[in-house]
Amino acid sequence: MRIAMIGTGNVGRALAAGWSRAGHDLVFGSRRPDDEALREELAEAVGARVPVLDPASAATGAEVVVNATPGTESVALLGAVGARALTGKVLLDVAVGFREDGALSHPVESLGEELQRAFPGTAVVKTLCTVDAGLMCAPHALTGPSTLFLSGEDAVAKRTVGALLRDLGWPEESLLDLGGIATARGQEHYSLLFLGVAGALGTYGFGIRIVPPAAEG
Amino acid sequence: MRIAMIGTGNVGRALAAGWSRAGHDLVFGSRRPDDEALREELAEAVGARVPVLDPASAATGAEVVVNATPGTESVALLGAVGARALTGKVLLDVAVGFREDGALSHPVESLGEELQRAFPGTAVVKTLCTVDAGLMCAPHALTGPSTLFLSGEDAVAKRTVGALLRDLGWPEESLLDLGGIATARGQEHYSLLFLGVAGALGTYGFGIRIVPPAAEG
Repeated sequence: MRIAMIGTGNVGRALAAGWSRAGHDLVFGSRRPDDEALREELAEAVGARVPVLDPASAATGAEVVVNATPGTESVALLGAVGARALTGKVLLDVAVGFREDGALSHPVESLGEELQRAFPGTAVVKTLCTVDAGLMCAPHALTGPSTLFLSGEDAVAKRTVGALLRDLGWPEESLLDLGGIATARGQEHYSLLFLGVAGALGTYGFGIRIVPPAAEG
Repeated sequence: MRIAMIGTGNVGRALAAGWSRAGHDLVFGSRRPDDEALREELAEAVGARVPVLDPASAATGAEVVVNATPGTESVALLGAVGARALTGKVLLDVAVGFREDGALSHPVESLGEELQRAFPGTAVVKTLCTVDAGLMCAPHALTGPSTLFLSGEDAVAKRTVGALLRDLGWPEESLLDLGGIATARGQEHYSLLFLGVAGALGTYGFGIRIVPPAAEG
């Protein structure tokens, strides 16, 4: 599958490496596509040379576009990519934005919803924002199974994303489909508990597992 | 231990029943202390007659005051109780507030922090707001161990609350101290993921477990 990774930070690099190892065809979208130092860094992070294009060009040739940009800038950055390059695509949205005071940049409606509304011809699927970049491709590094969440309106797109998550090592039974894109609010809001737990544990490398009831009352 | 339960809804009833069974001395604080029908309901829910006083009188005689009021009203209701009745006490805060549009009533600073600032002579400890009322006293009803969080400035107060949580059936290893009261933001923000998961599972009766890394990288 041809995947355009919009964003070249830790998350974009980790995911590009994971999907590249799984045999997918990666391309980075960057505002600095001609930066040779960046290209070298990305090649090292991914373990292979990966094309670096401007974001719109990267998205145009892809089946799945991944939003791994800072959540505070995602709307503007994807707006610059443009609806034409995104229409008919799956937009796998990983981003969460924080304001300077530590509050969510999208405290009411989620970023996922705002992106879905901005690009009605694109199937936005929110996922992966509840784990650290280092863990996204290494769920087996935990002491036990944990849960990953999916939010989105399009069932086919969620199946596509589910397959990509399995390619990263997340077993089918770890994936929990929360429902429509409005449920992205829960995934994004969880970030604040994530940060609190990270502070208490002294590591970002933990997961959460939904523990179901033993029997329905 | 003498515990004043401010709030007579599902959460207050469940917790009062749990702590009453554990041998603690409960009293309800209610704006309708003379409502005989309410007294009957509370006695049935708790399994024993429990005094029902006005909130300030209930808090005055207690060592631990539990805020089980609606999160949108907690500041006003505890303001009516008054700092004098709360000073020197542990305030175990369980409440989360939602606005009509589904957003948190405290999207930036948490309710826990607002209460701590309103009552500087009181040790606010946020906990229990990540599980449903039915599960608060029945953590063994889950298929496996789950995690409960504590946030607060006062270490002694957190130990007191930890003991009360163990009395409800939560083992010591299930309790995770997140740090100061500002970490209540995480617990409160998690509510939105809680609601999403509840919608997906068709039950509120689930827990979450923090899954630590197998080994530090």
